[in-house]
Amino acid sequence: MATIRDVAQLAKVSTATVSRVINSNGYVNEGTIKRVKEAIEQLNYFPNDVARSLFKGRSKMIALFVPDITNPFFPELARAIEDVTNRHDYTFVLCNTDSDIHKTTNYLNALQQKSADGFIIVSGSLTEDHLKNIQAPIVALDRIISTDISSVTVNNRIGSRQAVNYLRSLGCRRIAHIAGPEHVDNAIYRMRGYLDEVKHEDWFDSSYVVSGAYHFETAREAAVHLLTNNPRIDGIFAGNDLMGTAVLNAAASLDIKVPEDLAVIGFDGISMGERVTPALTTMAQPIYDMGAEAAEILIKQIRTPSQKVMREAFKVKLIERQST
Amino acid sequence: MATIRDVAQLAKVSTATVSRVINSNGYVNEGTIKRVKEAIEQLNYFPNDVARSLFKGRSKMIALFVPDITNPFFPELARAIEDVTNRHDYTFVLCNTDSDIHKTTNYLNALQQKSADGFIIVSGSLTEDHLKNIQAPIVALDRIISTDISSVTVNNRIGSRQAVNYLRSLGCRRIAHIAGPEHVDNAIYRMRGYLDEVKHEDWFDSSYVVSGAYHFETAREAAVHLLTNNPRIDGIFAGNDLMGTAVLNAAASLDIKVPEDLAVIGFDGISMGERVTPALTTMAQPIYDMGAEAAEILIKQIRTPSQKVMREAFKVKLIERQST
Repeated sequence: MATIRDVAQLAKVSTATVSRVINSNGYVNEGTIKRVKEAIEQLNYFPNDVARSLFKGRSKMIALFVPDITNPFFPELARAIEDVTNRHDYTFVLCNTDSDIHKTTNYLNALQQKSADGFIIVSGSLTEDHLKNIQAPIVALDRIISTDISSVTVNNRIGSRQAVNYLRSLGCRRIAHIAGPEHVDNAIYRMRGYLDEVKHEDWFDSSYVVSGAYHFETAREAAVHLLTNNPRIDGIFAGNDLMGTAVLNAAASLDIKVPEDLAVIGFDGISMGERVTPALTTMAQPIYDMGAEAAEILIKQIRTPSQKVMREAFKVKLIERQST
Repeated sequence: MATIRDVAQLAKVSTATVSRVINSNGYVNEGTIKRVKEAIEQLNYFPNDVARSLFKGRSKMIALFVPDITNPFFPELARAIEDVTNRHDYTFVLCNTDSDIHKTTNYLNALQQKSADGFIIVSGSLTEDHLKNIQAPIVALDRIISTDISSVTVNNRIGSRQAVNYLRSLGCRRIAHIAGPEHVDNAIYRMRGYLDEVKHEDWFDSSYVVSGAYHFETAREAAVHLLTNNPRIDGIFAGNDLMGTAVLNAAASLDIKVPEDLAVIGFDGISMGERVTPALTTMAQPIYDMGAEAAEILIKQIRTPSQKVMREAFKVKLIERQST
């Protein structure tokens, strides 16, 4: 394999000049840059990034932690993050944590050993204490970890109130909620937003809230149960779109017509919601923008260690489709 | 930060012994191993993987190249691969190539610089020529690159014949096909399988095959066009499930009843197919097993450079659901 000396010899410059061209620092005139680049290409020379990261203590590697990439919300986030990390020449590492703290901390330690530059973490159960040995910057995405860690989220509670009010404006009188997992902050805020709106209604009791755990199957079963036991329900606010599509599925299996007999609204704005029949109305998060913003904040923090904690909360937006 | 010397001092052994424990090579007695591990834990010492990869010329990093992780087939593959790489202590890197050769080769070169240990590649357009400078092992997944590169695929042509014959067994007389991209080998084989079965039928002409490009929107538009122009079509074999759900969507928008007036079968077996209404019948690939197998083969090749090229072709399996 070619070395930096071979490149210098062929381009008729010093190795220091080759290094300046490779690292884009210090002045080198255009003609020399061209010659060095041609020599690099001709010799198929690769400056050794491993050696460079040993020297700098960095690997140009950013990791995303998600519970499970097969949940359709996460590929859309991952795509945005990878676009930004790639643009900035970072390698994008993906870890599925299964929301398991032990697995998560194992990943963190392993990646710290590999000098990962930073972490973007979607986790409902990680606390600051689990992160006390992690030196690299962290951005919490979709779910907050602590006030001392930068985060990118949405206005879950207000967005959920809007969802319930929208169902009401369509004439729904008894609105139920399929909630996400109890240990996930955004699920809690979405449930609170729902409760803010309905808890003083005379028809309301706790049987109108069931857990769907952000899983399709769990939510489908919960919805079947809910609709069978409470036939007067005429609107459902699902805590995410995956559970919203599960409600549509449950309604079809019970021969309940959507939107005529039941209006359904989800939360997230994933592509799947547009693709099912009837298409799912939703409070859409700007998923791509959120992922991209999390990556941009992380890269800022990597480059400027003095960068202060940033907390971005995007707004959700009603997208009306056939399910309402 | 603690060093190897600190660990050796606390455990009352030499640094060479600590190194043997960390790298699990050479004999060290049980009691000493325990002492060293306790010292490592107490000092929160991380053996520097970057230094180790510089020494060994390896990074313990495996990369998966997919066209776009937001296509719902790929998260299921990615999940399987990440499970296996994680079990073997490899870091999992994800690259979205957008099926762009220039972007793909940039990723390959960048990861080679970072001493990536191996690549799993889903690509319809990459040739052996693009890979001639890549020293690390490669496994082609879902699509073949060349006979000299290991691959994990399915019996696309036979599976497609089975799909068409199944529609026929249900009484379908005019069966159309929504095809994938022309540059992707599995799409070509699936179309050939379809043609094997129908090309000699008296009703058949080329208007029964339209391109859906493995994209939802393209396939939906193609299906609307197809069903409007050929009202006698009573069966559709879609080249993948994403396009199959697009056909269901198109049929609903045209008030065509599935399965009464139109039977629809897809190919892949992604979760989304079970979740739409009506649920999509499909020729299911063992997606998880394929991803896991690709990762296992790659790791074998990394560990044993003399390992010969392996070509695994899994069988697809009919899963009957509501769309037929």
